[in-house]
Amino acid sequence: MKRIDGRENDQLRKLCFIPYYLTNPLASAAIELGNTKVVCAISVESRVPPWMRAQNVPGGWLTCEYGMLPASTHERMRREASNGKQSGRTVEIQRLIGRSLRGVLDLQKIGVNTIYVDCDVINADGGTRCAGITGASVALQLALRSECGVQRLKNNPISENVAAVSVGIVDGEPFLDLCYEEDCRAEVDMNVVMTESGEFIEIQGTAEGKSFSRRQLDELLELAECGLKKIFKLQREIIERATATNAKISGATGRPLKNLGNLGEVFDGVKL
Amino acid sequence: MKRIDGRENDQLRKLCFIPYYLTNPLASAAIELGNTKVVCAISVESRVPPWMRAQNVPGGWLTCEYGMLPASTHERMRREASNGKQSGRTVEIQRLIGRSLRGVLDLQKIGVNTIYVDCDVINADGGTRCAGITGASVALQLALRSECGVQRLKNNPISENVAAVSVGIVDGEPFLDLCYEEDCRAEVDMNVVMTESGEFIEIQGTAEGKSFSRRQLDELLELAECGLKKIFKLQREIIERATATNAKISGATGRPLKNLGNLGEVFDGVKL
Amino acid sequence: MKRIDGRENDQLRKLCFIPYYLTNPLASAAIELGNTKVVCAISVESRVPPWMRAQNVPGGWLTCEYGMLPASTHERMRREASNGKQSGRTVEIQRLIGRSLRGVLDLQKIGVNTIYVDCDVINADGGTRCAGITGASVALQLALRSECGVQRLKNNPISENVAAVSVGIVDGEPFLDLCYEEDCRAEVDMNVVMTESGEFIEIQGTAEGKSFSRRQLDELLELAECGLKKIFKLQREIIERATATNAKISGATGRPLKNLGNLGEVFDGVKL
Amino acid sequence: MKRIDGRENDQLRKLCFIPYYLTNPLASAAIELGNTKVVCAISVESRVPPWMRAQNVPGGWLTCEYGMLPASTHERMRREASNGKQSGRTVEIQRLIGRSLRGVLDLQKIGVNTIYVDCDVINADGGTRCAGITGASVALQLALRSECGVQRLKNNPISENVAAVSVGIVDGEPFLDLCYEEDCRAEVDMNVVMTESGEFIEIQGTAEGKSFSRRQLDELLELAECGLKKIFKLQREIIERATATNAKISGATGRPLKNLGNLGEVFDGVKL
Amino acid sequence: MKRIDGRENDQLRKLCFIPYYLTNPLASAAIELGNTKVVCAISVESRVPPWMRAQNVPGGWLTCEYGMLPASTHERMRREASNGKQSGRTVEIQRLIGRSLRGVLDLQKIGVNTIYVDCDVINADGGTRCAGITGASVALQLALRSECGVQRLKNNPISENVAAVSVGIVDGEPFLDLCYEEDCRAEVDMNVVMTESGEFIEIQGTAEGKSFSRRQLDELLELAECGLKKIFKLQREIIERATATNAKISGATGRPLKNLGNLGEVFDGVKL
Amino acid sequence: MKRIDGRENDQLRKLCFIPYYLTNPLASAAIELGNTKVVCAISVESRVPPWMRAQNVPGGWLTCEYGMLPASTHERMRREASNGKQSGRTVEIQRLIGRSLRGVLDLQKIGVNTIYVDCDVINADGGTRCAGITGASVALQLALRSECGVQRLKNNPISENVAAVSVGIVDGEPFLDLCYEEDCRAEVDMNVVMTESGEFIEIQGTAEGKSFSRRQLDELLELAECGLKKIFKLQREIIERATATNAKISGATGRPLKNLGNLGEVFDGVKL
Repeated sequence: MKRIDGRENDQLRKLCFIPYYLTNPLASAAIELGNTKVVCAISVESRVPPWMRAQNVPGGWLTCEYGMLPASTHERMRREASNGKQSGRTVEIQRLIGRSLRGVLDLQKIGVNTIYVDCDVINADGGTRCAGITGASVALQLALRSECGVQRLKNNPISENVAAVSVGIVDGEPFLDLCYEEDCRAEVDMNVVMTESGEFIEIQGTAEGKSFSRRQLDELLELAECGLKKIFKLQREIIERATATNAKISGATGRPLKNLGNLGEVFDGVKL
Repeated sequence: MKRIDGRENDQLRKLCFIPYYLTNPLASAAIELGNTKVVCAISVESRVPPWMRAQNVPGGWLTCEYGMLPASTHERMRREASNGKQSGRTVEIQRLIGRSLRGVLDLQKIGVNTIYVDCDVINADGGTRCAGITGASVALQLALRSECGVQRLKNNPISENVAAVSVGIVDGEPFLDLCYEEDCRAEVDMNVVMTESGEFIEIQGTAEGKSFSRRQLDELLELAECGLKKIFKLQREIIERATATNAKISGATGRPLKNLGNLGEVFDGVKL
Repeated sequence: MKRIDGRENDQLRKLCFIPYYLTNPLASAAIELGNTKVVCAISVESRVPPWMRAQNVPGGWLTCEYGMLPASTHERMRREASNGKQSGRTVEIQRLIGRSLRGVLDLQKIGVNTIYVDCDVINADGGTRCAGITGASVALQLALRSECGVQRLKNNPISENVAAVSVGIVDGEPFLDLCYEEDCRAEVDMNVVMTESGEFIEIQGTAEGKSFSRRQLDELLELAECGLKKIFKLQREIIERATATNAKISGATGRPLKNLGNLGEVFDGVKL
Repeated sequence: MKRIDGRENDQLRKLCFIPYYLTNPLASAAIELGNTKVVCAISVESRVPPWMRAQNVPGGWLTCEYGMLPASTHERMRREASNGKQSGRTVEIQRLIGRSLRGVLDLQKIGVNTIYVDCDVINADGGTRCAGITGASVALQLALRSECGVQRLKNNPISENVAAVSVGIVDGEPFLDLCYEEDCRAEVDMNVVMTESGEFIEIQGTAEGKSFSRRQLDELLELAECGLKKIFKLQREIIERATATNAKISGATGRPLKNLGNLGEVFDGVKL
Repeated sequence: MKRIDGRENDQLRKLCFIPYYLTNPLASAAIELGNTKVVCAISVESRVPPWMRAQNVPGGWLTCEYGMLPASTHERMRREASNGKQSGRTVEIQRLIGRSLRGVLDLQKIGVNTIYVDCDVINADGGTRCAGITGASVALQLALRSECGVQRLKNNPISENVAAVSVGIVDGEPFLDLCYEEDCRAEVDMNVVMTESGEFIEIQGTAEGKSFSRRQLDELLELAECGLKKIFKLQREIIERATATNAKISGATGRPLKNLGNLGEVFDGVKL
Repeated sequence: MKRIDGRENDQLRKLCFIPYYLTNPLASAAIELGNTKVVCAISVESRVPPWMRAQNVPGGWLTCEYGMLPASTHERMRREASNGKQSGRTVEIQRLIGRSLRGVLDLQKIGVNTIYVDCDVINADGGTRCAGITGASVALQLALRSECGVQRLKNNPISENVAAVSVGIVDGEPFLDLCYEEDCRAEVDMNVVMTESGEFIEIQGTAEGKSFSRRQLDELLELAECGLKKIFKLQREIIERATATNAKISGATGRPLKNLGNLGEVFDGVKL
């Protein structure tokens, strides 16, 4: 049996990145995973959160904020800013993305700085939290390679890329990278966050109305691992091309790094 | 004396629209005005706000919500959803956009419906509220021409387009369409909202530290009028092309309208 | 055709001021414009807002807060303090009043101080924001002439008075100083804020359901200018009389300035 | 030893009422007790709170809201609406005023209505909660005697007036009706709410740093009782005069009741 | 006529204390008064509230927070944390408990510290605020006798115990220590807070629908005084036994004080 | 190497339950896991959440709320009700507990009811979310066996028990059931939620600073499974004993079920 959009069980949706998508932050990348589109941006502030100062924790911090445009979802979502608070789902997701990125970051090496990661969903079709992690890892690497990033965060504090993918059981079959319609019908829904070197950062598996066995868990983990390998390959490629191009243009024009790749004019992404 | 970006005093920045930018809402349009990029989306809900029900006001309602991605601004802005409330500036702007669109809309003709207009700023370089009004007018026209829109909002309730532009006095000179750096230095800042037929919907002129004379007011109004004529021409053109193309594709594929122009693949905007 | 309350199109409502209306703040003035009654009070705090400290902006700041008693309005308004937030309208108005007063104030000359302007509507019958600006200008002048004000704000930081008036188009006719019933029926509603020397600080014109032409705009601006001249004359008169009397009484009794004109016992306002 | 303002230990401050102080609500009264000035207003809504509907409690409800203008207090108070919540003190006071008025009101007789009592402090010099109760009782009686009140609340639901007064121990001496400066120095602070027929509705006595004996309690209660008798006499007088005058004017002009005594032009209060 | 649970009019419910109920705070005590169960805990923080710092008030502060488990009440209560604010009743009660404890505490002697008193109701059957005061007084004494307490709060800052009891009039009869069902039917409800030496800290008497005479007030005060004497005796006894036992165990094991009486294993309370 | 408290790597802490801990809700159970103590209560309301009504979802709903007493934690935690919002951690945990219980509950069988599960932490020493799930499963079974539960929720809607346990890697070694000190030092932290029949409901594994391999994941899952078997055995035993005893007492006295086991007098838990 084929999937809604004709993919094989172990096939990712079309994935592409647009580095330097925004003109203002230190670095940014838009990520498109099928119809899911997330803008990931990196900003740095020269201080740490109150709780770190209060407890004299050395080093810096990385925190993530996640949001969805009200019109990004299937049914229009109420705007959290006018609701006056973030939903439980939003809070869970931004905590997950933050933890995942801190998993490959040496907080001791970033000095007394807070790195803000903003993941904003422009269009949603399932898998937004995974796209957020994957895209933010790219943006973070670009930030650290930028002139300003190099000055502020001297010793390279990132060991490797991190990426995430969703897997799930739909009508008894294990699927990789669920779109919105599959996600709604899934009996088991799992997000797997992994480092480029193949170790887990986070596993979140949830039964939606039907519990799952140890064997099913193993199948899902293998499916995820297989998809993540392809994603890591693309992440590396886009980061290399973006920094190479950037270096040249930056040398030629003398314009600040962050103005370079404005609004996708330099790259239109690398197709998988 | 030339302007920062080399424009003439009465020259608009490059303006383009991407109709059907999102896959989920009834209709949408992204608008790019120089480096300012705003996504405008239209959703409809089959009921009216409590205050209308309570007072038995006949007809429907249109309301706007405005937001900025935290990384869209020069310095990262604190996320309003995590702040727990919208700033005074946000509230002012969304009220302005709502009033402006209601100025060309016959609320009696839209039935017991609420039209939600979401204007979300992806990248900011001055003039976001004006871009929001101009882009939302296009999105609203597309929504009303969509199959679903035609069913829900039978009698065409929009008389004409509405658009807005900023003008201001910088170092004593009147400028059209201020970018962020000009806006910061402006002595007078004015937003002019007009109908296609050349009448005013809203005028908001503010002295920033230096008051202005009646003569200066007149100069600014003429500059605005001149810029708005070009904008109205482009609005009409993009709406015609979008609905023409859309009709054909829609007929050929039978896919629902809103999936057509997804993510800018069909149109890349019309250059001025 | 005459107006609801028999006034001519270019006639203001009865206007009077009660200086030193309150016993506790540095200075205050109640303003009555027909049935609209607003209490304007000035307080000073020896520090500036966090954003000024953070950005090392020199000088001081002036900020305004606006409120309405729940029973001041036609239908009882829900109390904003129990609602837990200020409405969009409230925020817009207090921002407008603050900008208007800053328009005649040299923030460099007030030292590291924040001037709080509280405009509280006791009874509402249209034009409360304009009455707030006009009354607050008087209160601010009184504060700067008070003993304590003279010490804290040494170099006179106010160049001249500022005042505001509403104008509008009702049933096709341009009217000056709209009362509540006229305001509800107005097709165009405009607030004009001007300095005593005849320049604009702010113009806000809004079409309520019917757009307006350039010629109508000009008519409204002339009507406003004519009304504002009368208001400026009365402001000057009341400030002179209040400070003259005050000086004498203050000399005679030795009581602190702010206790003088308590609750309207000294002045009952100057009739136009 | 005399008191700060020269009063005897058992002497009230000057007390006066201004009935029909506001033009919009069903009824209102301003009360001045020395420099303390509170505006009390009555509004009625034709429904009961959700908890009454949910539990099918028969009859109606009376609720009170209390607020202070930011500039009413010795040091400017932060505005509760901009703080986003009411302070504990505010909540305590409005609950007390509501309970006190419900103590003389037969909720079964007011039908499915909610009576809103708004007590807003314009100027504060101690005793604001007591002034609120005393003034609101007058406003409530006026509301019930008004044309509209008579229609909505047919069977007179109020048995008698209620009033409140503060007493306290300052430097070991029992005082009646404490002003702000006495209140700050008081060792014991007590508010006594009583019905015209001499029974207690509420007693709240608090030791401020020094506990008090049974004998001291008895002395304070006698002082309060003595002051309250004078207040009840004045309440009756003002209500009679206001309703008498009102009847005449209302007959003569045919204007709605609530426009009569606008802004204190009819009555300037009755001096004790 | 006997009471619901067979008690005499002047009889307390079964009262017992469990000292050191929690393992983490400086000290704690659970109090059970019939079916009412409240956990009282003491924590200390080495700084004072902002308003004390701002006004340079010398000494320290004690503040109380009160809460109810949602399932502690007759009908499940909505959780205040998810409501986003504390109810008026909660705020009133925590202010009362704080004032009562400060009534026997010399704030000058506690240094620049804030003592937090948390009173959390596990099960409610009337009288929770009185149980909170009585239990918190015990917990506070234990805290001051603890090793850590002795170091931080050197000069014994508490003069004596404080306790509270409710009294009321039900069907015309004065009762001591009302349970929930009696409280619901009471015509008069009074809480009396007293020091061990027999003076009042706070008296709060409220008529619930039926006012009360001076004679009834006197009867209630006598009933309260009689019940409070028994409570003071039990407080002293439990504090002595707890500190005696504690000293021994603490000497034997060397474990920090706060881990000793964990979860009621050492004491099961002292029965009255 | 032994653990802090001398346990083997695969040893649970002492576990006991106190059924019917509270007098007011439909059913309840306190659970003690070492020094961690959580009160779990079940209440039922005869309606479903607005989103279910809006979307016409058939059946009922179960929702969980989680809270911690401020004094339950190592350092006193700020009270969420006075903070005005629940922390991200709280929201995550209550969503997890709710999902876990819904995993063994047939929502179609509970009618148009909402089951509220309140998990309140009285004392915290690690593993509170797992204790909450395990204890709430017992309370839910008791509720369904109660007279009132039997009437409202006719067809037994729970298929089996659900329980949870934490596992983690500390200093490279896999441990079962981490206490607070172990949890702070853990490199990997995992919560496993399982049904009595041995299938997974939820797996949440997080690397805290050090990623984990597939082999380590497998070890942790086995450890969890082993601990959960013992917990399921104890759950069954306590439910049987509680319902057996209950039936007898209930028959003898005729008192409503929920008053039976009040405050731990009937059971003191079953030791493992």
